[in-house]
Amino acid sequence: MSSKDILDKVEERLSSHLFRHVCQVAQTAERMAVLFEEDPAKASLAGILHDYAKEKTETELLAIADENGLLEEEVYRQVPFLLHAPVGAILIKKEMGIDDEQILDAVYYHTLGRPFMNKLEKIIFLADMIEPDRNFSGVEELRSLCRHDLNQAMIAALDSTLAYCLRQKRIIHPQTIAARNHFLQLGKVT
Amino acid sequence: MSSKDILDKVEERLSSHLFRHVCQVAQTAERMAVLFEEDPAKASLAGILHDYAKEKTETELLAIADENGLLEEEVYRQVPFLLHAPVGAILIKKEMGIDDEQILDAVYYHTLGRPFMNKLEKIIFLADMIEPDRNFSGVEELRSLCRHDLNQAMIAALDSTLAYCLRQKRIIHPQTIAARNHFLQLGKVT
Repeated sequence: MSSKDILDKVEERLSSHLFRHVCQVAQTAERMAVLFEEDPAKASLAGILHDYAKEKTETELLAIADENGLLEEEVYRQVPFLLHAPVGAILIKKEMGIDDEQILDAVYYHTLGRPFMNKLEKIIFLADMIEPDRNFSGVEELRSLCRHDLNQAMIAALDSTLAYCLRQKRIIHPQTIAARNHFLQLGKVT
Repeated sequence: MSSKDILDKVEERLSSHLFRHVCQVAQTAERMAVLFEEDPAKASLAGILHDYAKEKTETELLAIADENGLLEEEVYRQVPFLLHAPVGAILIKKEMGIDDEQILDAVYYHTLGRPFMNKLEKIIFLADMIEPDRNFSGVEELRSLCRHDLNQAMIAALDSTLAYCLRQKRIIHPQTIAARNHFLQLGKVT
């Protein structure tokens, strides 16, 4: 499928509110890619696709996840919403023939993160948090870090996500902790 | 060894500051045990023993941990201080002949917690945080929870610990997250 066909299909699938969000993430990711010498077209495409499964119901997410062996993780059963990221990666491969591993991984890990994220994964994770409509305490500092240091930005972004989960009494996925520990340790070593 | 001999040995081993702390934890744990129908003498003894390895150097902790197969966990290598709890359990067994599994577990898990903690483990974990010398934002609410509901108190205690680690940019052990998720999930089910 061409980029135009992909955009049309995404617009057709998502609510207008969510479509606006993915377009903003795509633009933000594209700008960050230029800054950090990543492929801007790929960053834009990953941004457009990252929430492809976001409006699936919990039942649909659990069914697709189960078919694809994702449900060994206890936390996914407790918080099925978290599945929208890996299920999105599965669906864009199946329904749109996306086979670029970097784009698939950027979609897969855009919510939980993971240790050893590559540049595109970091860009999509961060662009999702700082796109122009985002507004939370600390977002300006995070935007500034996103212009200068992707790893420091990842620490700030993960800490902000984790602090939110603590305040809201939400289940925390151990992969997010592993990602944060990784970036923190990286900062100590380098 | 008699309780008196154990107390003498602990006093001989620990600095006066730390000895004061373990005595206060023992008294707090004893009172909590009475409230929640646990064995007060056992709670007191576990309190006295919980920080037995707290003043070992990082080198000593790592050496003892390595001999006992504890170093498969990456986080322990990054934050050797966390080893004082499991190493303490190893040493009180070896040096003082403590073989009560409940006491050994209460010492072992008093810093990180774990899912499915038993009553004595919860009491020691919590008494360590609320003993009279402790003073941090939220300690009075935690003391109140510790009189009424051990599981709710565990959520508050783990959240407080995790928020502290986030603020201080400390590495977080995944076991603490697993413990918190467990108690949170328990609260939703019951």
